[in-house]
Amino acid sequence: MIITTRADVTEAQIDAIRERVESVGLRTHLSRGEQRTVILCIGDDARLADVALLTLPGVENVTPVLKPYKLASREFGDGPSIIKIGDRAGCTVGGRALAIIAGPCSVEGPEMLLESALGVRSAGANMLRGGAFKPRTSPYSFQGLGAAALEMLSSVRAQTGLPVVTEVMDTRQVELVAEHVDVIQIGARNMQNFALLSEVGRVQRPVLLKRGLSATVQELLMAAEYIMAEGNRDVILCERGIRTFETATRNTLDVAAVAVLKRETHLPVIVDPSHAAGTAHLVKPLAFAAIAAGADGLIVEVHPDPETALSDGDQSLSIDAFEQMMQQLQAFAEAAGRTLPTTARPEAQVA
Amino acid sequence: MIITTRADVTEAQIDAIRERVESVGLRTHLSRGEQRTVILCIGDDARLADVALLTLPGVENVTPVLKPYKLASREFGDGPSIIKIGDRAGCTVGGRALAIIAGPCSVEGPEMLLESALGVRSAGANMLRGGAFKPRTSPYSFQGLGAAALEMLSSVRAQTGLPVVTEVMDTRQVELVAEHVDVIQIGARNMQNFALLSEVGRVQRPVLLKRGLSATVQELLMAAEYIMAEGNRDVILCERGIRTFETATRNTLDVAAVAVLKRETHLPVIVDPSHAAGTAHLVKPLAFAAIAAGADGLIVEVHPDPETALSDGDQSLSIDAFEQMMQQLQAFAEAAGRTLPTTARPEAQVA
Amino acid sequence: MIITTRADVTEAQIDAIRERVESVGLRTHLSRGEQRTVILCIGDDARLADVALLTLPGVENVTPVLKPYKLASREFGDGPSIIKIGDRAGCTVGGRALAIIAGPCSVEGPEMLLESALGVRSAGANMLRGGAFKPRTSPYSFQGLGAAALEMLSSVRAQTGLPVVTEVMDTRQVELVAEHVDVIQIGARNMQNFALLSEVGRVQRPVLLKRGLSATVQELLMAAEYIMAEGNRDVILCERGIRTFETATRNTLDVAAVAVLKRETHLPVIVDPSHAAGTAHLVKPLAFAAIAAGADGLIVEVHPDPETALSDGDQSLSIDAFEQMMQQLQAFAEAAGRTLPTTARPEAQVA
Amino acid sequence: MIITTRADVTEAQIDAIRERVESVGLRTHLSRGEQRTVILCIGDDARLADVALLTLPGVENVTPVLKPYKLASREFGDGPSIIKIGDRAGCTVGGRALAIIAGPCSVEGPEMLLESALGVRSAGANMLRGGAFKPRTSPYSFQGLGAAALEMLSSVRAQTGLPVVTEVMDTRQVELVAEHVDVIQIGARNMQNFALLSEVGRVQRPVLLKRGLSATVQELLMAAEYIMAEGNRDVILCERGIRTFETATRNTLDVAAVAVLKRETHLPVIVDPSHAAGTAHLVKPLAFAAIAAGADGLIVEVHPDPETALSDGDQSLSIDAFEQMMQQLQAFAEAAGRTLPTTARPEAQVA
Repeated sequence: MIITTRADVTEAQIDAIRERVESVGLRTHLSRGEQRTVILCIGDDARLADVALLTLPGVENVTPVLKPYKLASREFGDGPSIIKIGDRAGCTVGGRALAIIAGPCSVEGPEMLLESALGVRSAGANMLRGGAFKPRTSPYSFQGLGAAALEMLSSVRAQTGLPVVTEVMDTRQVELVAEHVDVIQIGARNMQNFALLSEVGRVQRPVLLKRGLSATVQELLMAAEYIMAEGNRDVILCERGIRTFETATRNTLDVAAVAVLKRETHLPVIVDPSHAAGTAHLVKPLAFAAIAAGADGLIVEVHPDPETALSDGDQSLSIDAFEQMMQQLQAFAEAAGRTLPTTARPEAQVA
Repeated sequence: MIITTRADVTEAQIDAIRERVESVGLRTHLSRGEQRTVILCIGDDARLADVALLTLPGVENVTPVLKPYKLASREFGDGPSIIKIGDRAGCTVGGRALAIIAGPCSVEGPEMLLESALGVRSAGANMLRGGAFKPRTSPYSFQGLGAAALEMLSSVRAQTGLPVVTEVMDTRQVELVAEHVDVIQIGARNMQNFALLSEVGRVQRPVLLKRGLSATVQELLMAAEYIMAEGNRDVILCERGIRTFETATRNTLDVAAVAVLKRETHLPVIVDPSHAAGTAHLVKPLAFAAIAAGADGLIVEVHPDPETALSDGDQSLSIDAFEQMMQQLQAFAEAAGRTLPTTARPEAQVA
Repeated sequence: MIITTRADVTEAQIDAIRERVESVGLRTHLSRGEQRTVILCIGDDARLADVALLTLPGVENVTPVLKPYKLASREFGDGPSIIKIGDRAGCTVGGRALAIIAGPCSVEGPEMLLESALGVRSAGANMLRGGAFKPRTSPYSFQGLGAAALEMLSSVRAQTGLPVVTEVMDTRQVELVAEHVDVIQIGARNMQNFALLSEVGRVQRPVLLKRGLSATVQELLMAAEYIMAEGNRDVILCERGIRTFETATRNTLDVAAVAVLKRETHLPVIVDPSHAAGTAHLVKPLAFAAIAAGADGLIVEVHPDPETALSDGDQSLSIDAFEQMMQQLQAFAEAAGRTLPTTARPEAQVA
Repeated sequence: MIITTRADVTEAQIDAIRERVESVGLRTHLSRGEQRTVILCIGDDARLADVALLTLPGVENVTPVLKPYKLASREFGDGPSIIKIGDRAGCTVGGRALAIIAGPCSVEGPEMLLESALGVRSAGANMLRGGAFKPRTSPYSFQGLGAAALEMLSSVRAQTGLPVVTEVMDTRQVELVAEHVDVIQIGARNMQNFALLSEVGRVQRPVLLKRGLSATVQELLMAAEYIMAEGNRDVILCERGIRTFETATRNTLDVAAVAVLKRETHLPVIVDPSHAAGTAHLVKPLAFAAIAAGADGLIVEVHPDPETALSDGDQSLSIDAFEQMMQQLQAFAEAAGRTLPTTARPEAQVA
């Protein structure tokens, strides 16, 4: 932590500031500049996190030196983490092969889910997404099929071999969701629902953590830290667009965040082009851009019949459109030194 | 809902669009302009909320006409709502008298809480705030005293007569919190934690709903709608600063939101100048601005000794500073046609 | 400037960094922490402004310590600046009396301008605004009457005694505009039009400098510094709303910026509630909030007949509405320890 | 234009609104819904642009139907525009071959400019950038070599055959700049400097128009419309990052804007990854993402020795780093169905 003092700071104030810092176990070093005196605090910044330095007379401002995340930091990991999904050999996130998660926004019934799963698997996806509990802006919108949808996801996983991903919204549902799915998703609106983060930190399931609509990269990493601090180290980060003044797209895909995160953390980073775009015709260019920027995978909304979807139909790809996207994606993956998922077409249990 | 078609739309596409809209029970009206054909959808927009109109060939864009909130809308209320707090006569939010909620960020112990309560009551506040469960960006920061803090709040309420406000972060704690406090707060980070909104909608306690860091005014009203739709109509809205590019303040107080909300909803609107500011010296001007813009009250962080506060010390006022603010506030309240709380100095049970 | 090094920095890299800093005349001080080594650069930060420190191997990040503005800084001024307007005794900006600038968005003709001037003067304004050259988003919108409007402004000033304010958009027009008006306005879209800033810095007329739509407080002060560095010290800053994600208002009035600026600079700060609001009914609450937060004045769009205005009619007050606002403003001004303009109703030359 | 009326609108108010709309030559159509009456305005929206509809009693809000740009719109163009640069055969922007513009932020002298030009040409760039007049946040920073730099650009163009691009900041310099360079750049801070836009609209040189820091896609197109309305149809749009709350990058590259623009306009769209990133190590992933999203080219800051650059050194690539980027770019270009510039390595006049 670096404390810059006001131009009119007194010696007594400087002494008081140093004393306060040293009282929590850090050392201080004083540096007198031509216009400003700077107090360097040497030791663990975290001990100063709850000290109200700005209230001390003579303090102008305070700049942290150390990153507040530890478990999530690049230095902590032993190289990039590769997270194993489910019990299928070879399904991982973070390695050379991209992870492609696809499926409907909401699970609307067993047939559409199976149709979606077969469709996305055949097109090259290696995981299935599908919402059981849906966070909707309006209480009057379709809220998901709940527990029944979890059963459908389990069943379709058994039928297709695809690991499944679904969102959890309530601490009371974490255990139930963890029983049924391979990856637990924390949605953008719950990225700083700290009670929920801690709860999913206590189960043994990989967590797909979406960046909040107005969360900084650092806050995303701190949210991951919440999960990891409870013992669950398998966190997959997901950039899905941030909120800006631009209204031409539903959100603004922060594609640079992918590159920043790859430098800051050992955790894998995927991109959700569907929510960033808000309309189907933008999904493809955003997916390509994400892979070009270094993302470890994608999560894409695909629906057998987007026109009749009960949620997010506007931004869902048809199975055909997804298939076409995957074909074109191949060349971008190669340009980025990656491969498409290799576990995507296993011994088919169904088709 | 108004559907604008693409310049190259065909008659068959127009027919298909109209059919889709009419299939959910609305009527359509076609209007052919010089450059664009527009399809007006007559009836309840809500029925179209889950219809993926943008996926239909020929559609350029879709504009809602009706507001998506109903219970929270100005038209629904019978004039501005006045919400009764606790069982004390005369403590209300939304009437001519301002509501002034003050107290520490976190409950740190029984003595400091009582000292805070007596201090803010004597300065003119009519409610006490104090965090029991604290949403902190870092898992390594002080997380609040939890259930023990709830007991302290109950006890200090009994001693001082001040109704108490505290935040709830977990659906599993709603019942417990509701038993101990007069107003349940939903924090900014949980504004779209829909499971939590529904849960507090089911208890009989007024809810103080803070605007999310990047929530629009409309989304704030939709979050209130979630609570109200479950039966709890006593929602107090709170503007507390939004996230923008500006870094000179912790958040940007959107003072216009107060005026917009007063026009859009019958619910009372208060302002949290402390979180908007991020530093103590900005709290006063923001508090005055809020009242000048028409806010129904304030929620302010006050600590007996901000320098030693376990959280938010930088933005907490000392009791003296709060008292000085309240004295100056009087004239602004009068200019706005309001009064300071009249129930603030009751038969003192303690002092 | 404080340079934080990477965890894996080498001694040779540290030496190279220190050498680079010292090569432009600063001294360095090394501080080895437990996890990071920090290099403090002692001396004038400005010399490092153009040094690409981030390109040096081993550098993690760079934090400035000193503010980049000098002439505009609070320390530079001898207390708050009071800027004298025109040659009329007593018309100033920055003193105890508020400055109230009012008038039409565009000068549409001599009669409407005179009617506006008499109306706003009678209501208590002490300066007249009126656009001659209009920055319009569309090339097909009304662009102002240009030089003819300048003549009308001169003439109405002579008739009413009100100093006049108008915007300049082109370096080639600065001289002409300066001849005709008392205050030259730089619009929000030109806040970082550095050629124009320098040009108005070379004339002897106070400059009203509007904050850019996405300019930080610090960038606004740097824009003022551009003007002041050329010799013109009479700069009036104007907060007029910034661009955020919120769409309920045209812009988001950053009322805290007023308080931040009053602390950072000796220059006076006024507020434009009309552009922040975008609709007439929000102008009043924003104007009150601005004064409550400590603004030195207002600039308000007023039109004799807003419905027929050639620009910004939606956000213009009628003369009646402005008069009503001014009456209510009195109490807010007093609460803030200010007075309404005293020079507003001089020996009337016309009415 | 679609006018939504208030719930309590009267028949007389509806009549007055219709009359006002019809008075400027449009027709109206009334549609009575269950809760709201909507007035459809049929005809050219532009005629209503300056009508203050919101001031009319009974109006709730107003929604435009037509896009405000015409010359820049996709419908206007006869397919995507291919803009010819300079008098060299084959140098174009907008065709299948990407345009790669590279060079130093500022022209610092004849040797470094020639070295840069030879370096970027050899790496595969087909145009040279170099600033003569520099927009700097601080008046105390290096402001560019001005007219002398224009001479150097001319001279290096003659020596290397590379067309040159430079920024103009002042209407008084447009003619001079147009004489010396092949493409005139309008910088982000001047995107809504309408006087400057009109001025470059009157010369016969392609214009590279950068998106403003907080400009919407629609405002960027309106700025292009300003140039085109004056007669100059050769406008190249450039996404260079927008301002958001995120501080991990200098700006947030809005990669989706590329895809949106390609759909909305016939004009070519390139990307500036250097200014979006703010640090050299992010330039490569952003460049790849831009091409993957469909950009027609790149403009990249390259310096023979970034550590000693007089401006933007932190975000400049060395010639080696640029060469490496170009080699990797090849595969992304192919994946996107594009080629690298073919005119990049002509008969070398110098090397």
